[in-house]
Amino acid sequence: MQTTPQYQAAFLEHLKTFTCDKEPKSLYQPIHYILELGGKRLRPVLTLMTAELFNCDYKKALDAALSIEVFHNFSLVHDDIMDDAPLRRGQQTVHEKWDINTGILSGDAMLIMAYQLFENYDATIFRALAKLFSKTALEVCEGQQYDVDFETRDDVTIPEYLKMIEYKTAVLVGAAMQMGAIVAKASKEDQQKIYDFGRLLGIAFQLQDDYLDAFGNPETFGKQVGGDIIENKKTFLYLKALEFSNAADQHQLKQLFSVNLEDNSDKIETIKAFFVSTGSAEATQKEIENYTKKAFAVLDTLTISEAHKENLRAFGTDLMNRKV
Amino acid sequence: MQTTPQYQAAFLEHLKTFTCDKEPKSLYQPIHYILELGGKRLRPVLTLMTAELFNCDYKKALDAALSIEVFHNFSLVHDDIMDDAPLRRGQQTVHEKWDINTGILSGDAMLIMAYQLFENYDATIFRALAKLFSKTALEVCEGQQYDVDFETRDDVTIPEYLKMIEYKTAVLVGAAMQMGAIVAKASKEDQQKIYDFGRLLGIAFQLQDDYLDAFGNPETFGKQVGGDIIENKKTFLYLKALEFSNAADQHQLKQLFSVNLEDNSDKIETIKAFFVSTGSAEATQKEIENYTKKAFAVLDTLTISEAHKENLRAFGTDLMNRKV
Repeated sequence: MQTTPQYQAAFLEHLKTFTCDKEPKSLYQPIHYILELGGKRLRPVLTLMTAELFNCDYKKALDAALSIEVFHNFSLVHDDIMDDAPLRRGQQTVHEKWDINTGILSGDAMLIMAYQLFENYDATIFRALAKLFSKTALEVCEGQQYDVDFETRDDVTIPEYLKMIEYKTAVLVGAAMQMGAIVAKASKEDQQKIYDFGRLLGIAFQLQDDYLDAFGNPETFGKQVGGDIIENKKTFLYLKALEFSNAADQHQLKQLFSVNLEDNSDKIETIKAFFVSTGSAEATQKEIENYTKKAFAVLDTLTISEAHKENLRAFGTDLMNRKV
Repeated sequence: MQTTPQYQAAFLEHLKTFTCDKEPKSLYQPIHYILELGGKRLRPVLTLMTAELFNCDYKKALDAALSIEVFHNFSLVHDDIMDDAPLRRGQQTVHEKWDINTGILSGDAMLIMAYQLFENYDATIFRALAKLFSKTALEVCEGQQYDVDFETRDDVTIPEYLKMIEYKTAVLVGAAMQMGAIVAKASKEDQQKIYDFGRLLGIAFQLQDDYLDAFGNPETFGKQVGGDIIENKKTFLYLKALEFSNAADQHQLKQLFSVNLEDNSDKIETIKAFFVSTGSAEATQKEIENYTKKAFAVLDTLTISEAHKENLRAFGTDLMNRKV
């Protein structure tokens, strides 16, 4: 097995072969720009790793890995327009650097190009990859729509929230891994299991993102701590705090989550104290642990070598111990 | 062979099976809305007709036909955002009825759903359809980008303009027909020929659209006559008029195409007179005829029955004699 940095390096090398030096430049330059912005390349690494777990040369999975990364970046470009976000990875977003029309059209082209990357596989694998991709991509759209809808709703339930993050984030992690398994011609059962492993780990990952956004160390956390609180985002922490509060506290929490302030330091501290005192912070950590355990339980039933299982467990544990 | 109205009816019946009654409603209702707005359903009819030309039950091509129509409507939804268009087929556009974010996300979902419609075909046909679809869809994006770029350029050449309409409009007509041929398992040569027939006819169709926009009968032409002139669109008529003008006339034409007026009736009459006096109107009609002839010449070399060729010729002739 390669190490994560080795997979990353192989992926970045392959990314260079992705031709964006085409006409019209106004369409393809933004695609090159967003793909070169960086990021951990977590999803494509998982595709490569999974292919190797099932005893396939990881190089065969490079196009599938690239497809996943191109799709992920397509969704970032369109989501950034919808969220009116000025920055992505510390740099200007595509619609900010160019304009909204460019963001829409370059994003559309990326979605199509993601499908084209499957054309290097034979018909049976092509069909399996494209089918999984379409199902997953549509769920990601649904997840994004739920997220948009939740902004203007004040009756979002915890199951609804979990479904939203599953669709918006976790299914793509599952699909990234299943694609590696498809390329490696793993059995349908193993494909389903590795998908579930990725999906469950993806949910844990997103819940941890919510947790770190409030309780991460400002020294090591990449983003502004308390960002979700400032934006009144109804995260798992918030929904659990409401669930665990009495009517008066619920009222105060909802009140705090309806204002937009100049200086947010007091608000952030008050809300964080709420998250701790209600038991929501602890419940969130518990939930992260639950999903991670569920993921590891699926792992045990896979028909791969014990050494490979240990690799995946180590990867999952690293991911869950991250502070960024 | 069925008649065009019979293909249309079969297509509309099949469209009913396209499930948009899913959650979240905010994502799927706009998709249902745009697909039910109507239109001539020209592209899916061509898919069905082509399948039958190659001796295949047209019903087998219904999903491919639907995919083409869903893609076409996806491109309308996103183009309408980019063009800031309030109306489509006399009704509110999606981003106007809902909002821009809905238009972006519902459009994305439609692009994915168009691919999903190929899943009912076996792996070899699936791959052939998806590959042609991706190539075509990317060209449609490129055509749209050229169209956007041309708005702010004053040195667009006629070959560039022809390439733009080929990509933005004609390749999808070619692909619609080739998909029928793929489903019917026609030979690669026949597939290429029917694609070229559709592509050439598509260019003729778009040039005729330009012509009718200026010279169509207001009684029968569906849109406002002179719409392109009001919007200063650099159509074939305009570019040819420039080519055929002396420096002084070029200056006046460019001048007229740089203003936005309250009352456009004088401008429209002046420009139309220019189009006639420079010989641009005649040259445009000649060009339409040329492309139609080229399309019919390809037709002659197809390995289909003479009766079927006559059907296609009649369809092409009808299309070119249209006044709307």
